[in-house]
Amino acid sequence: MDYQNILDRVHAAVKPVIGSGIVASYIPELAKVPADQFGIAIVDLAGNVYRAGAADTPFSIQSISKLFALALAFYREGDSIWTRVGREPSGNPFNSLVQLEQERGKPRNPFINAGALVITDMLLTHYADDGGAGNALIKFIRKLADNNDISYDRAVAASEQGTAHRNAAMANFMKSFGNLNNSVNEVIETYCRNCAIAMSCVDLARAVTFLANHGVVPWSDETIVDASSAKRLNALMLTCGTYDAAGDFAFRVGLPAKSGVGGGIVALIPGECGICVWSPALEASGNSYAGSLALEMLTSISGRSVF
Amino acid sequence: MDYQNILDRVHAAVKPVIGSGIVASYIPELAKVPADQFGIAIVDLAGNVYRAGAADTPFSIQSISKLFALALAFYREGDSIWTRVGREPSGNPFNSLVQLEQERGKPRNPFINAGALVITDMLLTHYADDGGAGNALIKFIRKLADNNDISYDRAVAASEQGTAHRNAAMANFMKSFGNLNNSVNEVIETYCRNCAIAMSCVDLARAVTFLANHGVVPWSDETIVDASSAKRLNALMLTCGTYDAAGDFAFRVGLPAKSGVGGGIVALIPGECGICVWSPALEASGNSYAGSLALEMLTSISGRSVF
Amino acid sequence: MDYQNILDRVHAAVKPVIGSGIVASYIPELAKVPADQFGIAIVDLAGNVYRAGAADTPFSIQSISKLFALALAFYREGDSIWTRVGREPSGNPFNSLVQLEQERGKPRNPFINAGALVITDMLLTHYADDGGAGNALIKFIRKLADNNDISYDRAVAASEQGTAHRNAAMANFMKSFGNLNNSVNEVIETYCRNCAIAMSCVDLARAVTFLANHGVVPWSDETIVDASSAKRLNALMLTCGTYDAAGDFAFRVGLPAKSGVGGGIVALIPGECGICVWSPALEASGNSYAGSLALEMLTSISGRSVF
Amino acid sequence: MDYQNILDRVHAAVKPVIGSGIVASYIPELAKVPADQFGIAIVDLAGNVYRAGAADTPFSIQSISKLFALALAFYREGDSIWTRVGREPSGNPFNSLVQLEQERGKPRNPFINAGALVITDMLLTHYADDGGAGNALIKFIRKLADNNDISYDRAVAASEQGTAHRNAAMANFMKSFGNLNNSVNEVIETYCRNCAIAMSCVDLARAVTFLANHGVVPWSDETIVDASSAKRLNALMLTCGTYDAAGDFAFRVGLPAKSGVGGGIVALIPGECGICVWSPALEASGNSYAGSLALEMLTSISGRSVF
Repeated sequence: MDYQNILDRVHAAVKPVIGSGIVASYIPELAKVPADQFGIAIVDLAGNVYRAGAADTPFSIQSISKLFALALAFYREGDSIWTRVGREPSGNPFNSLVQLEQERGKPRNPFINAGALVITDMLLTHYADDGGAGNALIKFIRKLADNNDISYDRAVAASEQGTAHRNAAMANFMKSFGNLNNSVNEVIETYCRNCAIAMSCVDLARAVTFLANHGVVPWSDETIVDASSAKRLNALMLTCGTYDAAGDFAFRVGLPAKSGVGGGIVALIPGECGICVWSPALEASGNSYAGSLALEMLTSISGRSVF
Repeated sequence: MDYQNILDRVHAAVKPVIGSGIVASYIPELAKVPADQFGIAIVDLAGNVYRAGAADTPFSIQSISKLFALALAFYREGDSIWTRVGREPSGNPFNSLVQLEQERGKPRNPFINAGALVITDMLLTHYADDGGAGNALIKFIRKLADNNDISYDRAVAASEQGTAHRNAAMANFMKSFGNLNNSVNEVIETYCRNCAIAMSCVDLARAVTFLANHGVVPWSDETIVDASSAKRLNALMLTCGTYDAAGDFAFRVGLPAKSGVGGGIVALIPGECGICVWSPALEASGNSYAGSLALEMLTSISGRSVF
Repeated sequence: MDYQNILDRVHAAVKPVIGSGIVASYIPELAKVPADQFGIAIVDLAGNVYRAGAADTPFSIQSISKLFALALAFYREGDSIWTRVGREPSGNPFNSLVQLEQERGKPRNPFINAGALVITDMLLTHYADDGGAGNALIKFIRKLADNNDISYDRAVAASEQGTAHRNAAMANFMKSFGNLNNSVNEVIETYCRNCAIAMSCVDLARAVTFLANHGVVPWSDETIVDASSAKRLNALMLTCGTYDAAGDFAFRVGLPAKSGVGGGIVALIPGECGICVWSPALEASGNSYAGSLALEMLTSISGRSVF
Repeated sequence: MDYQNILDRVHAAVKPVIGSGIVASYIPELAKVPADQFGIAIVDLAGNVYRAGAADTPFSIQSISKLFALALAFYREGDSIWTRVGREPSGNPFNSLVQLEQERGKPRNPFINAGALVITDMLLTHYADDGGAGNALIKFIRKLADNNDISYDRAVAASEQGTAHRNAAMANFMKSFGNLNNSVNEVIETYCRNCAIAMSCVDLARAVTFLANHGVVPWSDETIVDASSAKRLNALMLTCGTYDAAGDFAFRVGLPAKSGVGGGIVALIPGECGICVWSPALEASGNSYAGSLALEMLTSISGRSVF
């Protein structure tokens, strides 16, 4: 498969719509990001990197951090995590409290904010004596992306915390149901830091290759999760990874994917490669507009999808 | 892949749990079906049939009919169907009215009852002068399964209609929002007949092979839907096909599937085969208990899943 | 208390806003009613009648019929009715299905549509051999209003049934929970006929005097309900009688009241009089706009309210 | 009316059920209160005090503080408070977040926790330079109850704050909608202190006499609110004052009332007297079981109710 050719065709095709949509504005620091940017990268299992557009520009990964936090918690705790968080699509906006109330404080899945707060709480407990959950996640991501310069953006993290009332509402709510062991403040602070991690398309495409490779990092042969778990994480991405548009996304794109309101979307083709696209302007559901279209074209042109 | 060996191992492994769970009781005629039955079949793209257990015993396909009704409507109407029905997982029980109210009479997807009623309404309009939607669907299924003896069970259909108040509620509700063109009575009657169609595991496994074969019936080369549409139907099955356990099912099994409260589950491996398992006792979410386990084992043993 | 003077002052004061608001349009026959009409009447316990505006013009009583149906059912069945319908404000639109689902088919109170359908079902069972529930209600109302010419408007009843899908949805839904004994069609038909009863302000003000008089019809001394039950019906009117604006209505007006989308509102001052105001244009909650204002002025000017 | 005789009869009648129900346990300090206590007091507009049982024993007023906070805010800010809090019954448990989400952060009424948090926020802003909202409320209550010894219980306040996660969730949630001006911590702390105020039945019965007297404190002639506002506060108590059992309470008792999970219920008969009953064991809706029954008997025996 000639990935470079595909990326070039996709890049040319989406050019007219780059910048269409709305840049996330509820986090002031994110609102400053210019809308008309676009990058896409593929890293295959042999380690070859393919790029188009601003594929090396770091951006705020936001909810994509939920995927790595989940992988790290799953790696450390195994299937016991499912007693505290479900694995069903939510059918509601990513920060809804209604569902959380109906389900007595157990979030529907680890990719909605409530679920990610529970995962963060697990990591906080696990890494309490080891530099903290934030450090552990950064180290984990650096290893996956093979890039020690990855860090979080302090301005974004601060900006995030200033508007974290909805998340604090959910954290307190889960605490009232006994589904949070650490303090609400610690959980929120760590969560905000994780969302503020900055990575490029190339970093992210590389960081998910282990999910396309039966759980094994291709260039280091390190096993992150076993083959069955890797499949399961992919299944979760497909059913829950793109907010409440997951059904539509599976329908149009057909690949496991996780998006963030920074405009990034990671995806992967099992057995082949990791993919990341980025363009800051979002559609109503919170996924990158040009990014979603780019992935749809990529699967149309390549004929690849999991289905 | 030695399908026969896999089926035999799966059959042996699930034997202890066959009959565990609850046979659907809200339809009196279904409640009479003995719980301790089990069958499984695979039909590959070359037409080879593999069987274990009662793979040739006809059973009530119930909600599996929604898959064929959708395929027929999609075949006839194309993407315009999505103006009247969505394609997101529902996150709620299959017969919930709450969501329907929040979304102003547009059902979340074609696999919840409300969505299937809208699809039935489309077929009624389309086949008004051609023997009706019920006949059209039976003919379509006979063609897909290559079996002209397939028919619906009158006793089950009558039994179904006697308890169709919840469905009538939803149909009236959608009519109040203008999302039903035919009379509520016609829609309900046709819908109940479709649910009462009786087929065996072999019939059903064969009937879905076109979805594993880019939309083309393997033995007749007839194109039912184009390759892209076949992928999209598979994506819908994966995200919405097993009631509100679709996330869990994708996580455990990882194949596009559609279940029915008669205890049947059809699934497929893209590019390889159609699959059907049947065992009448259900788990809480309405999917066959032994059937779900059998499919989970099948993907574990074979290493096959879309992920 | 100089009721005539009060009515004249109220009439003069509301004149500028008569016609403001929206005439109910979902029932075609009601949509034809000119918006700029207004009438108000008081009937005191001595039988004196006070009028202003079009106080003798018959109009469609719509949901005000729910009050009489409840009184008749309560009269016939006593407190056993509360096993099938609650007495809490709904906090939701009058025709919501969400709440009905959460509460397993038991409507919150007898003044939302679902509750009135259950009350209608009770009357159907009670008067099965006696000319039917519709006839029984008309006879009951004629007696209360001392007017044998009261009847229902066939055109409105027919118009109502043509758009009764939402009500049919609720009836079917309650039937699925076992909270309806008669057929959905009979219940809907009787309910629609009851809503289509036509009465004037004078008729309605007189018809509720028994509720201001400890349950006894003042001019005939007939006891309809005992004193305690009369108080309780008044309490229900106050907390549930004006759709989901009952709190606001109690706050502004402070009298037991029941409104209808035909623009009528009956109210009463315990120990003093029955009141009815009518003006077809409605505010967003479904209560008459000029009518609500008129009652607010009436209690302000008179200093009367239950508080 | 021989109030002493009525209280004695009521006391005798409820004796067998005193202690039935459940003492609130979610606040550890409250859980220690013995269940088998009962007191009742009436203070008429001439200042006469009638007592039965432990009418002078202080108890934790809990949500009854919401009534005084509302009166103080209404006194200070007038009708502008209704832009930030509604006046409709909630139809949901007192600490539900679902409704808050549907209504975009504006609580349904000032007597559910979310509404009381908003009222607390108003008082915090108003009394920022004047010793704070907590002090202002204590002073206000001391004046109304004519008792300078009234204070709050530090152990209860601390206990309350330790379990305030649900309230913190709501406060954060409203802050995310812009409906809270002070910090979440300040609002929660002040709210918890207000709930922890300790008063006796006699204190509370006296403190609400102004609401039975057109807004004027009977013995001092001080006007707290105007006559119309007093009626409106009474209306709010009747429709919203007893959690989600307000409809049932109005039906059975028929008086404006406000209850607390400490087991107290204040009520009043307009133009006659203030009433307070206390017994710690609660029914499922959070109202005192023996207390509710006592008020129901009181209105049955006396023939008094607003209806």
